[in-house]
Amino acid sequence: MKTADSLPGSLGRDLLALRERAPLVHNITNFVVMNVTANALLAIGASPIMAHAAEELEELLGFASALVLNIGTLDAAWIASMEQAALLAGKKGVPIVLDPVGAGASRLRTATALALLQKGRPAIVRANPSEILALAGAAGVTKGVDSTHTSGEAEAAARTLAQSAGCTVAVSGAIDFVTDGKDAWRLSGGSPLMPRITGMGCTASALVGAFAGVCATPLQAAVAGMAVMKVAAEIAAESAEGPGTQQLYFLDALHQLTPEELIRRVRLARA
Amino acid sequence: MKTADSLPGSLGRDLLALRERAPLVHNITNFVVMNVTANALLAIGASPIMAHAAEELEELLGFASALVLNIGTLDAAWIASMEQAALLAGKKGVPIVLDPVGAGASRLRTATALALLQKGRPAIVRANPSEILALAGAAGVTKGVDSTHTSGEAEAAARTLAQSAGCTVAVSGAIDFVTDGKDAWRLSGGSPLMPRITGMGCTASALVGAFAGVCATPLQAAVAGMAVMKVAAEIAAESAEGPGTQQLYFLDALHQLTPEELIRRVRLARA
Amino acid sequence: MKTADSLPGSLGRDLLALRERAPLVHNITNFVVMNVTANALLAIGASPIMAHAAEELEELLGFASALVLNIGTLDAAWIASMEQAALLAGKKGVPIVLDPVGAGASRLRTATALALLQKGRPAIVRANPSEILALAGAAGVTKGVDSTHTSGEAEAAARTLAQSAGCTVAVSGAIDFVTDGKDAWRLSGGSPLMPRITGMGCTASALVGAFAGVCATPLQAAVAGMAVMKVAAEIAAESAEGPGTQQLYFLDALHQLTPEELIRRVRLARA
Repeated sequence: MKTADSLPGSLGRDLLALRERAPLVHNITNFVVMNVTANALLAIGASPIMAHAAEELEELLGFASALVLNIGTLDAAWIASMEQAALLAGKKGVPIVLDPVGAGASRLRTATALALLQKGRPAIVRANPSEILALAGAAGVTKGVDSTHTSGEAEAAARTLAQSAGCTVAVSGAIDFVTDGKDAWRLSGGSPLMPRITGMGCTASALVGAFAGVCATPLQAAVAGMAVMKVAAEIAAESAEGPGTQQLYFLDALHQLTPEELIRRVRLARA
Repeated sequence: MKTADSLPGSLGRDLLALRERAPLVHNITNFVVMNVTANALLAIGASPIMAHAAEELEELLGFASALVLNIGTLDAAWIASMEQAALLAGKKGVPIVLDPVGAGASRLRTATALALLQKGRPAIVRANPSEILALAGAAGVTKGVDSTHTSGEAEAAARTLAQSAGCTVAVSGAIDFVTDGKDAWRLSGGSPLMPRITGMGCTASALVGAFAGVCATPLQAAVAGMAVMKVAAEIAAESAEGPGTQQLYFLDALHQLTPEELIRRVRLARA
Repeated sequence: MKTADSLPGSLGRDLLALRERAPLVHNITNFVVMNVTANALLAIGASPIMAHAAEELEELLGFASALVLNIGTLDAAWIASMEQAALLAGKKGVPIVLDPVGAGASRLRTATALALLQKGRPAIVRANPSEILALAGAAGVTKGVDSTHTSGEAEAAARTLAQSAGCTVAVSGAIDFVTDGKDAWRLSGGSPLMPRITGMGCTASALVGAFAGVCATPLQAAVAGMAVMKVAAEIAAESAEGPGTQQLYFLDALHQLTPEELIRRVRLARA
């Protein structure tokens, strides 16, 4: 029970470790969010790389502390790239974070996410409730890439998925839910403006990836990434006037966040 | 004459309807603007999806209220994707908005835009004056993707294009011009900072797409989308100090815009 | 010695010329930075185009004042496009700026950068110290795409590279170094927030490209582009609270920058 016991006290140490080690996070992600997720990784103190060419994946993953796979604007070439990267990361022991954007919305997305889950064996899956329900086989059809389910509904599916896939699952929502199949945590806070900004879920996955590069366990990394999102979003919302300023103040808040403020503000409870 | 008569009174109702129904707008658009157009769609209250894989277009278009095709960073693979999406949208009755970025600047762009116009039968074409002149065959060569003509010069071409293609045409400029070939409207306002921000024309097309998902007619949708652009740009310019802050305050303004303020601020006149 | 003598007095005239002529800068660049580099080009007064399709490169380069090649998210198709564009630009006398993102981090990147250097004969190479060291054969392996060397260490490599490749080399860092192999200049200023924002190096390359379209010599263009970066970053940092606001205020500052303020603030010294 060492892992679970160490939360939430580990959050501050993990943020310090991230800033000190500046883990290189390799992202194969969608066109919509590449800029914003790279900026979030830089703002928190990590070092992002976006690269998808088959010819260089092996070399680049040799430097990486984590690999984030995000299927948001997938096509055959990018799927091949993600599958290859997942295999290489597996061989090298680089932890994988999978963001199954739109799983459930099309067969291609559901099948790609499932293939990456089974062959890639991600340490962490970060998704919205609809995607988790789709992945867990608990739901049928999803409308688009925005979630039509609450995180509460997805909690049981997340536990099942974590157990069957042997990974940690983080579900984003008004209340986040993170579980490794045994322990489970809920996070509240954040801002209602966040779902009005594109790529904030993808940003959560990227930050979880950064923590996966420094944390003792995937559960700790997933909680830390989600906690940093919630707290920075909350700080940003105190001065934002809409989704435009929220997005920028969020990056400022990630950059300025101290371990003390993270610990003081985070609302984390065992589920 | 129901359509024309209902403007500008319909604007407030259409904005309310958009917020209530949150239409899913499927975008096949260029790499430069994907993030900013997704954010504008979220800010106004719509739900964006960016997807281009042949394997999932049919399923995803089954959920879509509108399809926005933008040829800004076209290549053979993306052209094929746009043509396929246009055919599927036609079969499903999903209205198409075409943004012929750079038509006139290269044969590839002009030919692609014309093919999408003829085969895709878009409900609305949203473009700058140079692109409209190129598409209407009224102009020869264009420099780059920024417009070298005023919207005034393009008004006649827009009317001709609307009539020959059987669609609504929206021309962006210091004064916007929108026509379905019979009725025509001009919109003034906005901010001179807008042409100094990339993707604001593409954003107009995306917002027109959002309204196409809820409005009674393409003319009404095109006017509503352009009106929201002008008014939000004007509000943003009241506090912006340059194109950086303008872009963010513009998203804030889209999010905060009420039907009352839209009606109060819009400068719309029958042409 | 006309070129060298004219600096720094030429900076103000070159900024005026850029604003007057609004050079069209053709970019084949990476997915992460397309939006931000297009916005920086618009903010300073240039006109950006992002296009990579083989079928239209010849026509579009006919309008271009400069070509910026950036290998940040390279793959086989984009490499072919960059090589073709480089050949066409060479024939048309369009100056090329090469940004060898991640050279040294993978063989693919190093080989692609070297091929573009040798076949494309760029007027200017703009890079970080690690990339310059890799290109000059002075360094072995680089971690990721962020630099692990200081600009001081790369100065000798930059001189060698400039002489052997017959181009101007601009090295970004806390202190920038620009040389055409004979003359050399150092620029200080800027803001420590800049490395915490993705694409700021790529933005420097794009701005150097804009000046390459109007300046008398590549050395003058490289210095002007780097000077504008340093000064706008410094102005932005006076009101920014983190990397989010820094990025936006930077665009505002580029837009508002006057020749007088550029001259007054720039810290440029012969090396």
